[in-house]
Amino acid sequence: MSEEVRIGIVTVSDRASRGAYEDKGGPAIVEWLTQALATPWRAVTRLVPDEQPEIERALRELCDVEGCCLVVTTGGTGPAPRDVTPEATLAVADRVLDGFGEQMRAVSLKFVPTAILSRQVGVVRGKSLAINLPGQPKAIKETLDGVFAAVPYCIDLIGGPYIETHEEVIKAFRPKSAVRPKA
Amino acid sequence: MSEEVRIGIVTVSDRASRGAYEDKGGPAIVEWLTQALATPWRAVTRLVPDEQPEIERALRELCDVEGCCLVVTTGGTGPAPRDVTPEATLAVADRVLDGFGEQMRAVSLKFVPTAILSRQVGVVRGKSLAINLPGQPKAIKETLDGVFAAVPYCIDLIGGPYIETHEEVIKAFRPKSAVRPKA
Amino acid sequence: MSEEVRIGIVTVSDRASRGAYEDKGGPAIVEWLTQALATPWRAVTRLVPDEQPEIERALRELCDVEGCCLVVTTGGTGPAPRDVTPEATLAVADRVLDGFGEQMRAVSLKFVPTAILSRQVGVVRGKSLAINLPGQPKAIKETLDGVFAAVPYCIDLIGGPYIETHEEVIKAFRPKSAVRPKA
Repeated sequence: MSEEVRIGIVTVSDRASRGAYEDKGGPAIVEWLTQALATPWRAVTRLVPDEQPEIERALRELCDVEGCCLVVTTGGTGPAPRDVTPEATLAVADRVLDGFGEQMRAVSLKFVPTAILSRQVGVVRGKSLAINLPGQPKAIKETLDGVFAAVPYCIDLIGGPYIETHEEVIKAFRPKSAVRPKA
Repeated sequence: MSEEVRIGIVTVSDRASRGAYEDKGGPAIVEWLTQALATPWRAVTRLVPDEQPEIERALRELCDVEGCCLVVTTGGTGPAPRDVTPEATLAVADRVLDGFGEQMRAVSLKFVPTAILSRQVGVVRGKSLAINLPGQPKAIKETLDGVFAAVPYCIDLIGGPYIETHEEVIKAFRPKSAVRPKA
Repeated sequence: MSEEVRIGIVTVSDRASRGAYEDKGGPAIVEWLTQALATPWRAVTRLVPDEQPEIERALRELCDVEGCCLVVTTGGTGPAPRDVTPEATLAVADRVLDGFGEQMRAVSLKFVPTAILSRQVGVVRGKSLAINLPGQPKAIKETLDGVFAAVPYCIDLIGGPYIETHEEVIKAFRPKSAVRPKA
């Protein structure tokens, strides 16, 4: 039986969701994960407008029904009134991992001083980790490069599957006692 | 018609508000902004004791009645019992921008290890951005030098006026698509 | 009369509390403080399982009954379901000092990328400062090395005793106006 891991990808965008704009964030995430993950995986995608109830519903479905151990969002994390992705993510969270928001901002700050305006959060819901990423493909890559090393061990700790990465792309960090021998 | 921008400055200090001490924080903010801003602006000032209801009232008036697109406070952000500026600021906030607090502490930490004791926050209220600054003139300058590059674009995003800076003092950052041609 | 300062140390561990595992975190904290503090002090220790009510009770007793000006915990700050030390600490807090959590993670991040998974907090309860430390002795030392310089002045500000350190181990920082002449 395949051990295919499921990863949820939620694009949050008014324009993309009504077809006025091509979703570039979702594909950028798929591309990054395809290069990084050694474990077989499958994307479960959603495209929703900047409406808090719809974002919440997508997050709940991906975590609870689709069984995604990791759900990443793209878009809607700025200070503008229509940006409500963090509110939706916090609303479905069991607990917040402040270090994700801090480190994602710190990483982006090396590139643009307006990184401090992002309200990105990382949270745990049940056995799923949910992380808000920026909207721009370039910033998505920078952010994933900056925090993903901690993601597989986090998923271990909350009871999810054991995920391995291609070390030349990103080296997942685990304490020695948590590392399993390669298959 | 003049496009004069209004900026609120709230000095929070028991001693200064009863005249026992000269307010040095407010003037330090005025001086910094005078050097930094190319857009015509006018300060709307308040001097209040370390009482949460009075600080809240000043913040609400400056945002809602005086139409300040930016309100900065000085003083009252430490761990002492009389320090209640962050509580007042959070109480009037529509949303919190955690990156401001994080980055202001990170900047101050380059100068003093006790920077981690500051509870400064940055928040949005309607179309206004409110930021807590330290009490000391030297720390005010360090903090504004460290975060102001993100302020004009933040004010754009929440529906405020387009603010330009003198780039030799501080270079406001905006994505190319958000930059307007110089008048 | 002796001016002995009391410091609470709470080891949070299911295994250590039932005797299945030797507590290594508590002794590592005692060792670090013994080297760092010039002021006479005494440890008041507790060993509790990863149960929020028991952690809260230990924190309340150490702050309110035992008169500890500083209480440090070790263990239980990760994302796993049994990790509830931050929840307990926040539940007894009068106010949160976000800079402690931020800086403890930033310090640990120099050693391991999974530092962002820690949910450590620093809080004030009455005249006591409570800080969550990691579980591993090596990480405890790294964290105390990274934040303790701010601890004595914080305790001054919340009304606790004046604590002095051995400067060759850690130099406590205070503004000049807050430094008292050596006894």
